[in-house]
Amino acid sequence: MAELGVITELITLLKLDQHEDVKAKLDEMAVQDIATAIAELNEEERLVLLRALPTERQTDVFSYLAVTVQREVLDTMSAEESRRILHELLPDDRTAFLESLEAEELESQLKLLAPEDLKQSLKLLGYPEESAGRLMTPRFVSVRPQWTVTRALDHIRHEADRGETVNFVFVTDDRGKLLDAVKLKDFILGRQDQKVEALMDQEVISIQASADREDAVSTIQHYDINTLPVTDKQGVLLGIITVDDVMDVAEQEVTEDFHKLGAAGAVTMSLRDARPSLLYRKRIGWLVILVFVNLISGAAISIFENAIEAVIALVFFLPLIIASGGNAGSQSATLMVRALATGDVELRDWLRLWGKELTVAILLGVTMAFVVSFVGVWRGGAELGMVVALSMVAVVIMGAMLGMLLPFLLTRFNLDPATASAPLITSIADIGGILIYFSIAAAILTLPAPV
Amino acid sequence: MAELGVITELITLLKLDQHEDVKAKLDEMAVQDIATAIAELNEEERLVLLRALPTERQTDVFSYLAVTVQREVLDTMSAEESRRILHELLPDDRTAFLESLEAEELESQLKLLAPEDLKQSLKLLGYPEESAGRLMTPRFVSVRPQWTVTRALDHIRHEADRGETVNFVFVTDDRGKLLDAVKLKDFILGRQDQKVEALMDQEVISIQASADREDAVSTIQHYDINTLPVTDKQGVLLGIITVDDVMDVAEQEVTEDFHKLGAAGAVTMSLRDARPSLLYRKRIGWLVILVFVNLISGAAISIFENAIEAVIALVFFLPLIIASGGNAGSQSATLMVRALATGDVELRDWLRLWGKELTVAILLGVTMAFVVSFVGVWRGGAELGMVVALSMVAVVIMGAMLGMLLPFLLTRFNLDPATASAPLITSIADIGGILIYFSIAAAILTLPAPV
Repeated sequence: MAELGVITELITLLKLDQHEDVKAKLDEMAVQDIATAIAELNEEERLVLLRALPTERQTDVFSYLAVTVQREVLDTMSAEESRRILHELLPDDRTAFLESLEAEELESQLKLLAPEDLKQSLKLLGYPEESAGRLMTPRFVSVRPQWTVTRALDHIRHEADRGETVNFVFVTDDRGKLLDAVKLKDFILGRQDQKVEALMDQEVISIQASADREDAVSTIQHYDINTLPVTDKQGVLLGIITVDDVMDVAEQEVTEDFHKLGAAGAVTMSLRDARPSLLYRKRIGWLVILVFVNLISGAAISIFENAIEAVIALVFFLPLIIASGGNAGSQSATLMVRALATGDVELRDWLRLWGKELTVAILLGVTMAFVVSFVGVWRGGAELGMVVALSMVAVVIMGAMLGMLLPFLLTRFNLDPATASAPLITSIADIGGILIYFSIAAAILTLPAPV
Repeated sequence: MAELGVITELITLLKLDQHEDVKAKLDEMAVQDIATAIAELNEEERLVLLRALPTERQTDVFSYLAVTVQREVLDTMSAEESRRILHELLPDDRTAFLESLEAEELESQLKLLAPEDLKQSLKLLGYPEESAGRLMTPRFVSVRPQWTVTRALDHIRHEADRGETVNFVFVTDDRGKLLDAVKLKDFILGRQDQKVEALMDQEVISIQASADREDAVSTIQHYDINTLPVTDKQGVLLGIITVDDVMDVAEQEVTEDFHKLGAAGAVTMSLRDARPSLLYRKRIGWLVILVFVNLISGAAISIFENAIEAVIALVFFLPLIIASGGNAGSQSATLMVRALATGDVELRDWLRLWGKELTVAILLGVTMAFVVSFVGVWRGGAELGMVVALSMVAVVIMGAMLGMLLPFLLTRFNLDPATASAPLITSIADIGGILIYFSIAAAILTLPAPV
């Protein structure tokens, strides 16, 4: 919860040019809230606000800005200021900023870095996109197993400012190989003349730098840990990933899944900042594919043109019947896609879930058929009522099966189950719905033969 | 990442009755992985596995089981074992288990609790459902501002086992009012004869026990903190919420949003364990509502029955035109619902986004019209081609506007924007699509007047 009242107050003071009051207000605000306020300001006001902050807080505030805002801010700052902020940023925050830049911009920003920072940043940017390495910070505190607790605590005191967090202290051998992670608490509780070895339990969860960042997220979630050590293939400790980085990544991944479910390509940047051309490119692909799927529906209908001409009342129920299949299918696809994403359900569960979904679909279809059969009888007599009711049951079962099985099938072939979007399921269910409806109508009513 | 290999190995050993090997394997496994293994076993095997664990690890493993599995395990255990596990559970884990029970079961489990535990659990269960109070653990370590750092560290050492985490030490006054949160690190770095006061920065983020648990999630995410103190209305510290609890809640909330977007009521339990009757109840409501919305589509079509009889080729494009509006609408609704949920977009942004969405929708509509006009000309000549192309542009714009505005409108009236589900948008867009399509057809082709 950003404290909205405080933020509005700050902006008002700023617009009124009350610099002393602005400073006083900033003093009592959290950096995250100042960052929220900055996003609401224009370029000039942003600079005024940042410069009103003591230098050591500027970088802190900067690190909480969205990357698009970060870029705009650095563009308007002096080279001197930019250089200082880039230097003071934590390595993982600096990677997040740099990887958002286009090639040309990246080059000009890298030029601002001190040689040491440049070396570090190039190394971090060398890990594959969306890998655990890109998320990590190389700032951690490590001790040796043969040290005494007193010596280790001295070392921790000395290095504490370098480490992003010291809630966990990592134990490595002389070549940097990760041996264990020990809680800071245990160092305080332990006897001071003990060796670090005595505090170790040899149980440490770690991840390789080349691993997918989603694996880093699920490891931290599965093991309920706040800090995940990252190693190379030989087990040498390279850096740490903290739970706050992981929460941001988890949110992005969920957003991507949401967008896919709506058949919009994943829009990774802020919707507020996204340009129309980007949104167009992300969305047009699926829409055009769906046009062709829907044309098949048209072709299916045209087979039954004679039947429609003979019993025009059939058209009245057409939107209902085909939509109901899509609706039931969207429901089951949504449930399955999410359950597969959270790991609640796995590939091998499909048969068990299929049986359950079939039961549910029959219940849903019968209920909906019951509701709609009255309207059918009213519009076209008992026979049409029966056509509509039977079609409803069949179409709902077909849609639900489609919505349930497609995500599993996609997973089976190593494709993303979220590709089974609501619009895709709806469009495919439309085709099935048309064929089912008119076939049942042809069997029950006296209709001319299909074209 | 549960280490799947290890889990499979463990289960195999267990099924082969190799008890010694099972014990050895369990020794090197993390409790979270043992919990994952237990979920795969039958009741009898679960008991064997749990009893093979040293008692102090049993409760740890138990706390990582899904509540449905926890219930099954406790049901098969002896009263003695159940009593011990319930006693040893951390208070927040105990609340999570107890709140999942039906009234009758709850009563019988509460009887197993020691008087002290019972008092604590009843207090925690007294906070409203889905409130911050339900998530918290009353185990924290607090110190007074006038204490010296040495005395505080002694106290922390003494109390560390009570606290779920001591990465943050809370400073309270004599009446328990929360004054500050100080990092454990600062106690180690600080001069030992200093007063705790000297370490305080008077900046502490906290939340009231009665607040919504979603606020607890967003506060922890916004401020990037690992531990959130929970107070009563007077600011007295009652407990703490840790980031791992919050990640679980965040995942549940996202799942609820997903399900709503698919027009399935939020299914909060595991899909694997959910009974068909529950799934039926969660889904039938929206499906029946949508039946009535779709009947309006039918009514809209029946207005144009004469036109359809005159130009039967119009029916060919009907599924395409109405589906395209729904598809574009599903896309924009999905983007908006997610952006509103993450706070990327707020209510006051609607005008700016409306302009952008309109631009995007025109581009999308024109592209799709271009694609489909050829098919239109081929099926029914130049005039029908024009009807189809114009309808496509209009319908896509209508769908996109509907999908964008409905989530804002719902938010404006304090309703959940996720109610604007893909199936709802699709069904409403169907009605608009039918009216638009046949109106344009009537204007361009020579058609009989509507009924």
